[in-house]
Amino acid sequence: MTQQVFTGDREYFPGIGKIPYEGRESDNPLAFKFYEPNRLVGDKTMEQHLRFAACYWHTFCGKGGDPFGEDSRILPWDEPGEAMAAARARMDAAFEFFTKLGVPYYCFHDRDMAPEGTSVSDSERKLVTMVELASERQKETGMKLLWGTANLFGHPRYINGAATNPDFAAVTHAAAQVKAALDATVALGGENYVFWGGREGYASLLNTDTRRELDHLAHFLELSRDYGRSIGFTGTYLIEPKPMEPSKHQYDFDAQTVIGFLRHYGLDGDFKLNIEANHATLAGHSFSHELQMCTDAGLLGSIDANRGDPQNGWDTDQFPTDLYDAIQAWLVVLADGGLSSGGFNFDAKVRRESVDLEDIFLGHIGGMDTFARGLEVAWRIRERSGLHRAKQQRYASFDTGEGARFEQAKLDLVALRDLAERHGEPAHTSGKQEWFENLINQYL
Amino acid sequence: MTQQVFTGDREYFPGIGKIPYEGRESDNPLAFKFYEPNRLVGDKTMEQHLRFAACYWHTFCGKGGDPFGEDSRILPWDEPGEAMAAARARMDAAFEFFTKLGVPYYCFHDRDMAPEGTSVSDSERKLVTMVELASERQKETGMKLLWGTANLFGHPRYINGAATNPDFAAVTHAAAQVKAALDATVALGGENYVFWGGREGYASLLNTDTRRELDHLAHFLELSRDYGRSIGFTGTYLIEPKPMEPSKHQYDFDAQTVIGFLRHYGLDGDFKLNIEANHATLAGHSFSHELQMCTDAGLLGSIDANRGDPQNGWDTDQFPTDLYDAIQAWLVVLADGGLSSGGFNFDAKVRRESVDLEDIFLGHIGGMDTFARGLEVAWRIRERSGLHRAKQQRYASFDTGEGARFEQAKLDLVALRDLAERHGEPAHTSGKQEWFENLINQYL
Amino acid sequence: MTQQVFTGDREYFPGIGKIPYEGRESDNPLAFKFYEPNRLVGDKTMEQHLRFAACYWHTFCGKGGDPFGEDSRILPWDEPGEAMAAARARMDAAFEFFTKLGVPYYCFHDRDMAPEGTSVSDSERKLVTMVELASERQKETGMKLLWGTANLFGHPRYINGAATNPDFAAVTHAAAQVKAALDATVALGGENYVFWGGREGYASLLNTDTRRELDHLAHFLELSRDYGRSIGFTGTYLIEPKPMEPSKHQYDFDAQTVIGFLRHYGLDGDFKLNIEANHATLAGHSFSHELQMCTDAGLLGSIDANRGDPQNGWDTDQFPTDLYDAIQAWLVVLADGGLSSGGFNFDAKVRRESVDLEDIFLGHIGGMDTFARGLEVAWRIRERSGLHRAKQQRYASFDTGEGARFEQAKLDLVALRDLAERHGEPAHTSGKQEWFENLINQYL
Amino acid sequence: MTQQVFTGDREYFPGIGKIPYEGRESDNPLAFKFYEPNRLVGDKTMEQHLRFAACYWHTFCGKGGDPFGEDSRILPWDEPGEAMAAARARMDAAFEFFTKLGVPYYCFHDRDMAPEGTSVSDSERKLVTMVELASERQKETGMKLLWGTANLFGHPRYINGAATNPDFAAVTHAAAQVKAALDATVALGGENYVFWGGREGYASLLNTDTRRELDHLAHFLELSRDYGRSIGFTGTYLIEPKPMEPSKHQYDFDAQTVIGFLRHYGLDGDFKLNIEANHATLAGHSFSHELQMCTDAGLLGSIDANRGDPQNGWDTDQFPTDLYDAIQAWLVVLADGGLSSGGFNFDAKVRRESVDLEDIFLGHIGGMDTFARGLEVAWRIRERSGLHRAKQQRYASFDTGEGARFEQAKLDLVALRDLAERHGEPAHTSGKQEWFENLINQYL
Repeated sequence: MTQQVFTGDREYFPGIGKIPYEGRESDNPLAFKFYEPNRLVGDKTMEQHLRFAACYWHTFCGKGGDPFGEDSRILPWDEPGEAMAAARARMDAAFEFFTKLGVPYYCFHDRDMAPEGTSVSDSERKLVTMVELASERQKETGMKLLWGTANLFGHPRYINGAATNPDFAAVTHAAAQVKAALDATVALGGENYVFWGGREGYASLLNTDTRRELDHLAHFLELSRDYGRSIGFTGTYLIEPKPMEPSKHQYDFDAQTVIGFLRHYGLDGDFKLNIEANHATLAGHSFSHELQMCTDAGLLGSIDANRGDPQNGWDTDQFPTDLYDAIQAWLVVLADGGLSSGGFNFDAKVRRESVDLEDIFLGHIGGMDTFARGLEVAWRIRERSGLHRAKQQRYASFDTGEGARFEQAKLDLVALRDLAERHGEPAHTSGKQEWFENLINQYL
Repeated sequence: MTQQVFTGDREYFPGIGKIPYEGRESDNPLAFKFYEPNRLVGDKTMEQHLRFAACYWHTFCGKGGDPFGEDSRILPWDEPGEAMAAARARMDAAFEFFTKLGVPYYCFHDRDMAPEGTSVSDSERKLVTMVELASERQKETGMKLLWGTANLFGHPRYINGAATNPDFAAVTHAAAQVKAALDATVALGGENYVFWGGREGYASLLNTDTRRELDHLAHFLELSRDYGRSIGFTGTYLIEPKPMEPSKHQYDFDAQTVIGFLRHYGLDGDFKLNIEANHATLAGHSFSHELQMCTDAGLLGSIDANRGDPQNGWDTDQFPTDLYDAIQAWLVVLADGGLSSGGFNFDAKVRRESVDLEDIFLGHIGGMDTFARGLEVAWRIRERSGLHRAKQQRYASFDTGEGARFEQAKLDLVALRDLAERHGEPAHTSGKQEWFENLINQYL
Repeated sequence: MTQQVFTGDREYFPGIGKIPYEGRESDNPLAFKFYEPNRLVGDKTMEQHLRFAACYWHTFCGKGGDPFGEDSRILPWDEPGEAMAAARARMDAAFEFFTKLGVPYYCFHDRDMAPEGTSVSDSERKLVTMVELASERQKETGMKLLWGTANLFGHPRYINGAATNPDFAAVTHAAAQVKAALDATVALGGENYVFWGGREGYASLLNTDTRRELDHLAHFLELSRDYGRSIGFTGTYLIEPKPMEPSKHQYDFDAQTVIGFLRHYGLDGDFKLNIEANHATLAGHSFSHELQMCTDAGLLGSIDANRGDPQNGWDTDQFPTDLYDAIQAWLVVLADGGLSSGGFNFDAKVRRESVDLEDIFLGHIGGMDTFARGLEVAWRIRERSGLHRAKQQRYASFDTGEGARFEQAKLDLVALRDLAERHGEPAHTSGKQEWFENLINQYL
Repeated sequence: MTQQVFTGDREYFPGIGKIPYEGRESDNPLAFKFYEPNRLVGDKTMEQHLRFAACYWHTFCGKGGDPFGEDSRILPWDEPGEAMAAARARMDAAFEFFTKLGVPYYCFHDRDMAPEGTSVSDSERKLVTMVELASERQKETGMKLLWGTANLFGHPRYINGAATNPDFAAVTHAAAQVKAALDATVALGGENYVFWGGREGYASLLNTDTRRELDHLAHFLELSRDYGRSIGFTGTYLIEPKPMEPSKHQYDFDAQTVIGFLRHYGLDGDFKLNIEANHATLAGHSFSHELQMCTDAGLLGSIDANRGDPQNGWDTDQFPTDLYDAIQAWLVVLADGGLSSGGFNFDAKVRRESVDLEDIFLGHIGGMDTFARGLEVAWRIRERSGLHRAKQQRYASFDTGEGARFEQAKLDLVALRDLAERHGEPAHTSGKQEWFENLINQYL
């Protein structure tokens, strides 16, 4: 079904229609310069490759507060009054935005969509009500759910952790939220379900039994997986690494830590990784490194597209505009055969001082243009430049002869030593990094 | 056997005798203020707990050069002339230093002890010659070898990696070096054997097949392990994590990455980790975090004791003087039952401008005093303060009742949700971090 | 006048009395282990040296919210209701806390003490009302005001800056707040007045005229100074450097940047610096470096005592517990003759999960003990160790002869060259850093 | 005079001729894709705008050693033998490279060009000899000297500093080197003279009198300036900021620190700044920030074009390939009226594993293409996009009316307060950062 623009009882973005593609010469800030959804790149359209999603939290719940300042953005759908009425208005605004922007997917936390209730069952009822409305909206518009999740970090009951809370009572509340969020995700046909452990970590090693907490975390994920499967969830479970913030140290530090954790606890059959660019750099890695580690392990699930500030040590969640990041991400993803059930979700927020309502369109347009162009450049590099071949060629000595026998485990250490003795000093071969880097700019 | 002070044909540190313990009121810079080898801490002496080692490379080969400056330190044992004669002089100096300082252990790379030869077999012969001399020196003095290793990062044949080099010929040379270094380690009764992969990583993802390289690395370690076992090595193999430098990114990034790697490739039965403080902080972790991750996994092998500079982003390898680091390290190590075959090896160097020969004594004395005092404070904290009990108490809800059933995997997600509903909002409990931190200062 | 414990109509910290000094063997967490106010260190008491202050904002307004989580701390003085009634309750709690803790000073922002009104004049009236009450409380208790300031970063009118806002209308509001805050500071006998430019900086260079904004900032400070002097303020104006957060880049990046700014605009006669430890480390400096740069320039005003987390890149504002920081700070401050009108203000907050009311006492006690002990150790190092003399001795070649003539500007470049030619290669002298560092631990 | 390709007795780069411009579709790695020297951008050619320089040190003296590895690059001009013969061969290679690459300028340290002698006067003689040869080469080829400098960081006599050495004798040697390097720079018609204070800083505050050292540094610069002027040097003196490495902390930390220093000591009439991209990021700043701070102060002198690695905390000195850096640099430089006596000098080195001789061409070609393209994009942004106007418009309230009177210092704090009261709450205006950022990508 083709996506339909949705407007509820009130139009929240008057004067802004469906965002058109106008090409790079256009002076219209509210038009795509590079993202042309139906344009073919190889045998898939841009839309099929990119699988863009917008997020519910930053865009419809975020009001611009920061640790030193009050809220700055006035959200017309957020008027004082009854919480469920506000949730309905927010959902109308969200679907209007999604469909005007032209993203096929969205993502949400339980508490983005429906307010916390007075009890577990009251919270559940509120969420069910909003999920029913979202389901209708999806049918009306053709929008799809990339993933759902539960917010296990905002409420003060989670100050000491959710699944890793030293108090079992808090763990049970985390379980209740995950159960309801899985129910919601299944009801909305979500293709993935995400865990982000913002409070799963420690503030101080002095008061923390890390081993016990990690065991709890793994068991919690097992129980969640089992429940999801029991209600018919066939999608992918995703863990999103982040090294720190709000915790001093978070258990899901980076891709390698999470991959090791999943394998150790036997969770790697059901769980993959959701890689966020800003979290990668906070962990001391490049975005493409984290993606590469995941595809090497066959565990890349989805992508949270944003960027940090290279001079700032916290999660700035800026809209991604760096074409190098986009190209390098696509080089990794294309080599992996593309995203399967994942997508590019904009876990990004406009700056606190971007208080115009149109600014959220501008941020998303910039991000979508960046990844669309990144896709095109990466595709051309793969098709036309010799980059891939040159990289393979560096390993040619392992493709035949004794090198191949090494890979086949047919040589022992003494045999290797004897080959070294016979062969004498190996050639010192240039890594040609400058050549590789120049190629990227030539194709950009 | 009690350690004997060794002096060769030439005394390299005239005027400096065996370093005595004089207590904290002493004005003698060349005396220990806190390290009293025979002092009992619990039922072991300080010497037995601390298992100090000095390193061959920084202390006897390092001359103070840096990326912007020439060598600054004049080593009296390093006179122009024939390389093997210089190696013998260096060994005399080393054993004189070890025994005057009073460390029971030392560590070395193949190339520290003997020069590179003109061929694989020539390098082997040179190493064997020096190992025979070292063996004599050990017998004369009572010195023991904590670990040996091969230098697979200095020679230009390893510019693109050693075990992970894209050229198989370079891999064979790495194998030859490891074989000879294992032979040497066994000959000297080494208790451990270390791998540090300074060139195992990448400078650019564009030209690197990380998956293939990691498979090569794992296979290389398997072959090395098998060879070592075949010649009677019964000690522990150690991998030393470091995130970067000299490579942009090193595969052995941090403890969790290495633990995941060892488990994935089935190497965790033979390999443990050698944690270096400065590498921990370069990876964005605290020293104690890395130790804790290892002990949680039962994989703490040994410790490279040093420190980085919090304002500098490279491996400064300074002598450890921070008592907090020492106390926190000991809190983790004591909870793990102490070091078994590992030790505290000073992988540390005096500053480039510390050109007096006595400065290497001062550096080691400061480091040894720091860890001796850290041991004593940590021991008192464990014995007398309520820290450990307070930490355990935070998890009491998992020790009995439904929490215990959760740990025994007897509850599913729905059961947890029902408990949450019945229990209502959990108490919001203080983490008491300020209290825990104040305790450390009270006992320091 | 001796300080009196204050309790208002309601006691907010029942069960906690005046915090006593009990010494390091005490098991009472609510007692000082090292801070003994009347103990003489040299010819001044600890209290006179340390000039401790508690802050109004973190301790009485901060509720534990962070970018990912809701408020966690329940403040008994912060009950729903009329804003001015809440302000009065908060002030009662504050003075009860100050006097039970036993700090002689406090600090505040305008909006900590009184709520924002409906207009400039309404805000002014509210502040005046609260200042009158604070003045009474000061008289009753003997408490003194270390400094006042205006909060020019919280309100959304300052999203693009306060004094550096591109919109002149916002600048006028900043001026109105500073005027009222200066009035309040004078009324309360404040010894200093602080400017912290949390929004004075940029989020992007693309949209910012940095030169024009800095000119505005300097002029704004001139006008503020002139107004303060016109109403009889004879104290010190202070600028507090911070490199970033909430802005991407803040103009008052570090001590050297601020010192250069003050001198360039001729403000260094009236303004000094307020150095915060956590801001120092965010700028890539050590705390003691920032203090040293200030004392070198004769511009150290006051200190915001706290610490960051070495693994986290944002302002964690933890209570200071690192004795090395305290010792090194005191070495710099004692060499400068001590603090004059400044003090040690705890710009620190308990962790989000430290939800017990007593935790704010524990945090302050730990911080006060740390700086008290740091003072004692630094004093002993100065009195008894040879540290200071050894440092001076390194420069002895400039005290007489040609070196002294160089300092007196009596030698030109050619003369220096000729001395080099005559003298030949200089001695290469050890910096003895290891010796200097060992000394600190010996005296700790 | 048009530049002539130079080849000495031996051709060091056989098979490589003058690097041609072939456009972005060319498959020739040894051709420019974007840099077309004679192409007009505005009323100047690319060559006139860009003023490219190659450096003597990395390219002709650097052999690929790093703190963990031996030299890797074999330089055909660096054969064993007499030092002056090697210096002549190196110079032949350098001029062959400069002229084949087609850069109009070069830069050098005294010790790059001529070896250290056995005494001050011997070093001087050696340098004079090589300078005479360089002078001939310049005449033959048309090459020009962008700047000269003295290496005051490599020799161990400078372990504790050069101008800031605690030993006056070392200061005199630094003076001797600067005198000779100034003589050389004048003899070669150098347009600038650079000071980089790699050892002017500290390793520990404990043993350092920073105030005295900074006074010495300033006086040293005065004497150097006076000597240069006395021998007819009319160019610009440049200081190159760097925050750390090799020192723990360097006095010339960043642009603002150096600007403050120059102004404080009255040196800002003769000295400007040489901004290096990699040093900017090590200091926690963006490259464009450092450039902007300089142009705001009227003190931008020249540029060292390179880049660091965002994940590595040391000076990687990579060739600049990031087009964003280049565009943003040009936006600042064009707003300042272009470079005057400065240029873009490639203080960059090929990776240690780039051992092919052609790699140094590839690195420079990539860098030159990057800055040529950055110039073109920035020029178009200035000419065609509304970026500049939109930025100015944000400050319109200061162009007339009360805002203008504020800038003219005609309003006091009370007047500002009254305007705020009358005006009421200011509009909260979007900073439109997302729009500004999207523009850059549209023009790239």
